[in-house]
Amino acid sequence: MLTACRQVSPTTLIAIGITSIFLSATIGQGQTAADPSSSVDQAGNIRVPDVNYRKEWIALGTWAVAADEGGLGSNGMHVVYTQEETITAYLETGKFPDGAVLVKELLGTETAEMTTGTISRAGEVEGWFVMVKDSTGKFEDTNGLWGEGWGWAYFGADNSAETTTTDYESECLGCHVPAQDNDWIYTEGYPVLR
Amino acid sequence: MLTACRQVSPTTLIAIGITSIFLSATIGQGQTAADPSSSVDQAGNIRVPDVNYRKEWIALGTWAVAADEGGLGSNGMHVVYTQEETITAYLETGKFPDGAVLVKELLGTETAEMTTGTISRAGEVEGWFVMVKDSTGKFEDTNGLWGEGWGWAYFGADNSAETTTTDYESECLGCHVPAQDNDWIYTEGYPVLR
Repeated sequence: MLTACRQVSPTTLIAIGITSIFLSATIGQGQTAADPSSSVDQAGNIRVPDVNYRKEWIALGTWAVAADEGGLGSNGMHVVYTQEETITAYLETGKFPDGAVLVKELLGTETAEMTTGTISRAGEVEGWFVMVKDSTGKFEDTNGLWGEGWGWAYFGADNSAETTTTDYESECLGCHVPAQDNDWIYTEGYPVLR
Repeated sequence: MLTACRQVSPTTLIAIGITSIFLSATIGQGQTAADPSSSVDQAGNIRVPDVNYRKEWIALGTWAVAADEGGLGSNGMHVVYTQEETITAYLETGKFPDGAVLVKELLGTETAEMTTGTISRAGEVEGWFVMVKDSTGKFEDTNGLWGEGWGWAYFGADNSAETTTTDYESECLGCHVPAQDNDWIYTEGYPVLR
């Protein structure tokens, strides 16, 4: 493009530089937000993010669900993804920014004897949990999915656009109580946040 | 920038458009390459990529190593990352492009009773395997790490810059023989490539 921009003056370039510095400073003050629009509409309805989060977002970490007593390895893998902006903000502030979307993909597994031992790897998708950070509480009177600074929803594998959960307190919150003092998130499983 | 580009003519914009189409066509022909410079020097020495691959690259998938008989869950998690360009190219061509770097982070685990069951999650780094795609064979006479279209190296947790392996054939290849017909890679564990 620059060959076509003969009128770009040194002043313009300096202005662009100053703008960049200003934007960096704003982010440095912990005001970074993430864009939740892939996952929440204006009415507070939640869906599985309609982006290829496996490729476009960043994997936070994997939880391997142990096989039942007597079995070997894992019978489930839960892989959690979020937007890159969420990780950038968390590393700066130690907090999840508004707009952070955490999608936990629930996968079955295949377990086999491999050259490195008995190994479980991801199988098919069995469902999703989605959480969306919103500290403003703007959706708390909408659909029963919002509270404690988050939106909470579960999705069966057959419908990523509509949650089957209707009451986050009775259907979602219980499993997160042990992480309550950590903004409800089990961050210890997420090496990229260390 | 456009406000500073008063001399951009319709002809220039058409030229830019044609260039974009040409570039897309080139990529479409499977000539996409990935940049291996974070992981390989000019002499073919391999290191663990000196980027924050957990955040800057894409997770291909996780292999959970089963605990020994009688134990529950996993006693290791192997998480594999690659550059985004590698995934883009693979999804277009079904092949790993030259310059693709696969870094397998070997992690210990913590296993605990959680609200969702007996769960293993990533612990500390115990080492890395790194593979680098190079179909040209240009490094095959250098350091014993290159052959079968790849560079192969293992790194202990205490030194990510220097491999301890010196002969890929005797130290690395054996574990990959079952995946030989799939360019030596166990892609079945990588949902993002499906």
